[in-house]
Amino acid sequence: MCKVICLNNISPVGLKALPKSYGIVKDMNEADAVLVRSANMLEMDLPQQVKAVARAGAGVNNIPLEKFAKMGVVVFNTPGANANAVKELTVAGMLLAARDIHGGMKWLEENRQDPDIAKSVEKAKAAYAGTEILGKTLGVIGLGAVGASIAGAGGALGMHVIGYEAAPEGVAPHNLSKLPDNMIMAATVEEVFEEADYISLNVPLLPTTKGMINKDTIALMKDGVIILNLARDAIVNDDDMREALISKKVRRYVTDFPNAKTVNMEGVIA
Amino acid sequence: MCKVICLNNISPVGLKALPKSYGIVKDMNEADAVLVRSANMLEMDLPQQVKAVARAGAGVNNIPLEKFAKMGVVVFNTPGANANAVKELTVAGMLLAARDIHGGMKWLEENRQDPDIAKSVEKAKAAYAGTEILGKTLGVIGLGAVGASIAGAGGALGMHVIGYEAAPEGVAPHNLSKLPDNMIMAATVEEVFEEADYISLNVPLLPTTKGMINKDTIALMKDGVIILNLARDAIVNDDDMREALISKKVRRYVTDFPNAKTVNMEGVIA
Repeated sequence: MCKVICLNNISPVGLKALPKSYGIVKDMNEADAVLVRSANMLEMDLPQQVKAVARAGAGVNNIPLEKFAKMGVVVFNTPGANANAVKELTVAGMLLAARDIHGGMKWLEENRQDPDIAKSVEKAKAAYAGTEILGKTLGVIGLGAVGASIAGAGGALGMHVIGYEAAPEGVAPHNLSKLPDNMIMAATVEEVFEEADYISLNVPLLPTTKGMINKDTIALMKDGVIILNLARDAIVNDDDMREALISKKVRRYVTDFPNAKTVNMEGVIA
Repeated sequence: MCKVICLNNISPVGLKALPKSYGIVKDMNEADAVLVRSANMLEMDLPQQVKAVARAGAGVNNIPLEKFAKMGVVVFNTPGANANAVKELTVAGMLLAARDIHGGMKWLEENRQDPDIAKSVEKAKAAYAGTEILGKTLGVIGLGAVGASIAGAGGALGMHVIGYEAAPEGVAPHNLSKLPDNMIMAATVEEVFEEADYISLNVPLLPTTKGMINKDTIALMKDGVIILNLARDAIVNDDDMREALISKKVRRYVTDFPNAKTVNMEGVIA
């Protein structure tokens, strides 16, 4: 029997897909293989008998790849497994950022008891108006499984799309096929910063991408830009983002990684 | 000079489009023409000199068409003017209903002061998970400017789309072109009720559509159906909707017309 330990909750649907000869164990010292999502393995001591680590998801910044390689432990990831889910959340984030839907919902909550709510709401709606995404420019940085899906969705919703990929020769054919026909491929990431009304970050967390959104890159952007980060929080420098939100240079920062810094910033949707 | 009165706020962009020989007046007794959005004109006495009423928007249920026709007053509407905006709001509504994004946002608001929020949020996320819209069936009732756009967006986001139109021969060619290639055209509205996971209502308010969503039609639907009504509130019977939400027959009711009844119902997104 191959013994597998789960460092995070793994979907029962996924576990059922394991061969019958596999079993789940609780103790790392018994495990032949590790299933992990976001648990931090960087400082973890892996017993000698562990042969493989499988990451449910694409990002491997929680896994010491080199150390494990030297130990002969194979690391698998599953790029694209959650790509559509992230795409849908990103589209939702764009629409929430474009119009103050959240503000409208909060207004409603505060006015629940108003017996004349149907009329009051029609008057209040104007305060929560916003813009359409149709015709706006969506910049997609990183054209992997997630980025390519988001580019495709933006194109389908009538946005102009400009994409950037650090290794364009490495874009997988099935991801290339998702890109909108009229997408403009940027030669440099700066082009995206300069052109886009919405910027979606879809890069892994690497030394080269850490803090790539900072005061210098934000300075290149359009006033009132909307930034979506459903990739990894450290891609954005939170202190610089706070400044940019206060000065209204950045209209909204949408992230699914709220932290102690960003959670209290005005203009953050998390 | 042609004198125009605005019964609702009309966008300055729209007013600028009027010829220079037009002027805005405040007094109905001076007006040659009326610009209106949602203001109720059903009981309004129109002075004799008024020649035309223009509705910024598609719905004319606030305008007594027959009475005005007898008086020789021409009524214009602008179907499609806000179609993309309603489409985007509907897509946002579908995504908000599919996953408990609003619940997640509320959780975050209540936990703003948690210094360890970045970690806590990863644990809390599971409680606000949901489903993807990819592969689900979207039923679109009414294939006018708005309905056709919504059908197209659903198709582009990977949904199966089933459409129904009471007068299919009347669907405008530019709306037909928005429909997804693989959309199934239902012969009866009951087919849509039976097949769809998401039902988008895009019909005008008429005697035949008033209360069309009621306990009998809801009974035909799948358990856990999501209903989106960004058309007119009276298309849905609110009391029957309350029952269906309590019994979980309907998972969510998304509307931009909250009223005193619906505002306090669990499962309403407004």
